[in-house]
Amino acid sequence: MNAILEAQTTATAPLFLRALNGENTRTAPIWIMRQAGRYLPEYMALKARSSFWEMVRSPELTAEVTLQPIRRFGLDAAIVFSDIMTPLPPMGVKIEFNPGPIIENPIRTKTQIDALRIPEEGEIAPFLEQAISLIRSELSSSDTPLIGFGGAPLTLATYLIQGSNSKDYEEFRAFLRLEPAATHALLEKLTEVSIRYLRAQVKAGAQAIQLFDSWAGLHDELTYREFALPYNRKVLAALEDLNVPRIYLAIGCSHLYPVIAQLPAEAFSVDWRLPLNTIRPIFGTRTLQGNLDPSVLLASKDTITLEATRVLKSGLGGAHVFNLGHGISRFTNPDHVAHLVEVVRDFDRHEIQNLM
Amino acid sequence: MNAILEAQTTATAPLFLRALNGENTRTAPIWIMRQAGRYLPEYMALKARSSFWEMVRSPELTAEVTLQPIRRFGLDAAIVFSDIMTPLPPMGVKIEFNPGPIIENPIRTKTQIDALRIPEEGEIAPFLEQAISLIRSELSSSDTPLIGFGGAPLTLATYLIQGSNSKDYEEFRAFLRLEPAATHALLEKLTEVSIRYLRAQVKAGAQAIQLFDSWAGLHDELTYREFALPYNRKVLAALEDLNVPRIYLAIGCSHLYPVIAQLPAEAFSVDWRLPLNTIRPIFGTRTLQGNLDPSVLLASKDTITLEATRVLKSGLGGAHVFNLGHGISRFTNPDHVAHLVEVVRDFDRHEIQNLM
Repeated sequence: MNAILEAQTTATAPLFLRALNGENTRTAPIWIMRQAGRYLPEYMALKARSSFWEMVRSPELTAEVTLQPIRRFGLDAAIVFSDIMTPLPPMGVKIEFNPGPIIENPIRTKTQIDALRIPEEGEIAPFLEQAISLIRSELSSSDTPLIGFGGAPLTLATYLIQGSNSKDYEEFRAFLRLEPAATHALLEKLTEVSIRYLRAQVKAGAQAIQLFDSWAGLHDELTYREFALPYNRKVLAALEDLNVPRIYLAIGCSHLYPVIAQLPAEAFSVDWRLPLNTIRPIFGTRTLQGNLDPSVLLASKDTITLEATRVLKSGLGGAHVFNLGHGISRFTNPDHVAHLVEVVRDFDRHEIQNLM
Repeated sequence: MNAILEAQTTATAPLFLRALNGENTRTAPIWIMRQAGRYLPEYMALKARSSFWEMVRSPELTAEVTLQPIRRFGLDAAIVFSDIMTPLPPMGVKIEFNPGPIIENPIRTKTQIDALRIPEEGEIAPFLEQAISLIRSELSSSDTPLIGFGGAPLTLATYLIQGSNSKDYEEFRAFLRLEPAATHALLEKLTEVSIRYLRAQVKAGAQAIQLFDSWAGLHDELTYREFALPYNRKVLAALEDLNVPRIYLAIGCSHLYPVIAQLPAEAFSVDWRLPLNTIRPIFGTRTLQGNLDPSVLLASKDTITLEATRVLKSGLGGAHVFNLGHGISRFTNPDHVAHLVEVVRDFDRHEIQNLM
């Protein structure tokens, strides 16, 4: 990017989008995975009156919950309040939350896979599209960008086949070995629905997309190459023409980064297991997002300062979006989040880079 | 080792112990994590009549269960049937199994830690010592070596503080950040008890020791260096004079191998996430144990042959003990285990190495 173009971008685009587009910004933008959630008393107040699906399916409630952490902390991005399971009921899958997802009839046969519907783009989550419009108009004054998101096909398949949260998703890993053709048929359908679901969010106003591949790290490289890579590539490539930055999230995937780096995404969200300066060379000039261990927020403010500064220093030398390595714990004190935001805002990346 | 010595060792020592001591054996010895367990009908028959603690605390039942998979498959090593929780009740901790461990009063205060007893060596598990004698005399005709084992201090602390199985052990990770001094005090006590517990097993007749650090992979390198490395080193070093090979097991630790390689152990048991030929250079000339994905045993025999052969080839170029990357699934068909043993026995490592 030449100097004049860079100056224009700097003047007009929000910090978060500039960092996603590869700019080595002076301050790292910050948002927090699961920032609208159970650690906030204002969220619990709403949660006491509505079920999870009621909150997700009411555009007004979704907007309210999405905006709560923005009002409280002035974060650099909002993420629409939803769940990676949201596009599955229109496919014909019954899901309850208790509090993790419970699939009424886990998918275990080719017949069940054949029976899954592929809904039209506008049919998947019209309530979410309305919520996105509402949130965008509320955010227009502060110019805070809004993130849309979805689950990666393999991670969605993991839940559909296992049926609920699990330590090591043994039922799923067995199915994948026993029925590779059926697994691929399921992944094809989930890929198509994910594309429609994410495109609908961007058209409704989402300014960035995050693809959550929360369970990819269960697998070795060959398995990831066969059952994850082609589908992730297809989903991310199908968003290319919409011209929004794409973030791919992987947890417990230290052993897969060189393969993950092949994906067409502008940014990669990584967990806390490796420092950012070890990870950065693998992803070249693309943006890294992360990677404070969420358990640090449960410690003292001094520990938070120390550990967040360590992450910030490790993120120098390229574009960095500050975040946790995984979702925030519900036991987190909101004051600790406010403190973290201050630490990140006070850290002048250019000045400290020059000193090093 | 010179040729005459090698010939003597070859003539006298069982395959498993030769491989643990660094010999690049012609056949890879094989045993299977959780080989005495719920996938075996003969185990379920005993389990129907006795609780888990009854089985662990009766030397006769322990011996019977330990020997079941040896009789059925002729594996290259037996591992004494027990649980990493076994040394904790003598410290004053109440534990039930349902089926995972449930700690009656999870450790959350320094007062609770101070109250933990450090029992004498002979007091921790006399029933286990008796079981080991019984098993050794039963195994003497086949010359099958017997493995003793224990949990690594950090992994034991993970359960003691969390209180039960968990997806990400958030309570534990919070405690470790909030109360680092108390965590160290707990780890010190667990280290001392582990040393006594493992020494008692070796003195009773265990011919190798495996230290299970099942949850080490939750942590980044700095956290591992502070809360795991020094205690693991102390436990393993304290067994040095007993002259039995020491195996250190880590799961989900791809990012920690260079630090783990600093431990004084003869062998390292690794999960399926990285191929053995990628891992081997990190551990130099020491033995690798692993690393078939347990879910492969749930697939067809053809898939088992294919994937086991891949692991065997990847393990060439150094000492290799064949095993799974983690415990066998209770849904495994025992015939599949028999097939796996055949595949491993038929694989001539020297011949195939020469062809490559």
